[in-house]
Amino acid sequence: MQRYFSSEKINNKLFLNENDLYHIKVVMRMNPFDLIEVVYNNDLYLCHLDENYDVYIDELKEKGKKKDIYRILCLPLLNDQKFSFVLQKATELGIDEIIPVITERSKVDIKDKEEKKLIRWQKICKEASEQSKRLDIPKVSGIKKISELSFDGLKIVCSTKEKSKTLKNVLHNQEKCDKMVIMVGPEGGLTSLEEDKLISLGFIPATLGDNIMRVETVPIFILSILNYEVME
Amino acid sequence: MQRYFSSEKINNKLFLNENDLYHIKVVMRMNPFDLIEVVYNNDLYLCHLDENYDVYIDELKEKGKKKDIYRILCLPLLNDQKFSFVLQKATELGIDEIIPVITERSKVDIKDKEEKKLIRWQKICKEASEQSKRLDIPKVSGIKKISELSFDGLKIVCSTKEKSKTLKNVLHNQEKCDKMVIMVGPEGGLTSLEEDKLISLGFIPATLGDNIMRVETVPIFILSILNYEVME
Repeated sequence: MQRYFSSEKINNKLFLNENDLYHIKVVMRMNPFDLIEVVYNNDLYLCHLDENYDVYIDELKEKGKKKDIYRILCLPLLNDQKFSFVLQKATELGIDEIIPVITERSKVDIKDKEEKKLIRWQKICKEASEQSKRLDIPKVSGIKKISELSFDGLKIVCSTKEKSKTLKNVLHNQEKCDKMVIMVGPEGGLTSLEEDKLISLGFIPATLGDNIMRVETVPIFILSILNYEVME
Repeated sequence: MQRYFSSEKINNKLFLNENDLYHIKVVMRMNPFDLIEVVYNNDLYLCHLDENYDVYIDELKEKGKKKDIYRILCLPLLNDQKFSFVLQKATELGIDEIIPVITERSKVDIKDKEEKKLIRWQKICKEASEQSKRLDIPKVSGIKKISELSFDGLKIVCSTKEKSKTLKNVLHNQEKCDKMVIMVGPEGGLTSLEEDKLISLGFIPATLGDNIMRVETVPIFILSILNYEVME
């Protein structure tokens, strides 16, 4: 069943945005009284459309649960295609927040297009969340500099300098935490200075092993592993 | 340094194919006496070009090692873009062999184009191997039916029916093996009959957890985990 996200609820009526209504009417060619799933405030509702394509709740299907760990991906600016790809895959793999980061070797210049880009990126995450049947949409935060990446929780930077401490070492030797931040490098890697700055901010450098992966593969690799670590 | 694969060596001269020579001369615009890396028979050589762009070995840089585990991915036929994507990513993540499989819900019909497709798929794996600095190229085997997927070693099928036995359970409860075969489903999943057939061939059904992933994400997810399992 098709799933949409709503951000407004009045009594048993949920409101969808124009794009979603277009999708329902034109792309999916749904009819009045067809059923859809709508997520509102992390809860999943079974709903029906009335003759005006207004959306009414039939029943609560699933209550959203609080996650044990909040996962943030710090992602250097990549070209549009690769950045969108990572947003989509990271959403599939359960990321909670993505922070676009300016690095010395990011060859992408956003200039005054940040606001427009953020809207587009957020839309990609919303659509991927619908596809993956998530009960929430990852947040795409404003673009940050390396020096602004200050967090509590476990912080890991994928390092090309670090040779002995693996991602597995780091994950297995940490105490339980409720926030995890992963910084990956851009094409060409982080500079030595950038890595040092991150280490001074509490990031632990870790190697991902011997495979040489494309920059857009790395986040998928890591998020797969984080999912595996919590698998029973 | 740019890396190429050679399949012919006479004394200290290595032979590259026409495409690679074109890449060297036209795409990379290399000059005589420039250095390149060439893999021959799983060994990596540092080489130089002479004035005729013939390739001569300067030294052996790295001797290929025998791998502990031979990993096979059984991949349902997907549309060309997705299939190529998985070949590329699986190569980055160290796969040894990919077997294209006809399944009931594969919507792709190869007809009489199998030979042409296999050449193209093998080329994608070769180029991804060069990019990932591998010492070998994954083999793309001929297209098989489900009933032909008979192997020794550990065999796992990604199941949507299986709810309790996770991939982690299966990997942690198996004895050491030197071959591992992973079958993933097509869009829409394997049919119940197909899954039963695979189980009768010794495949262990395993769930990948709660995330709903696109079909092309699943092999990356699994191969990332297999890499993580052997990480120190």
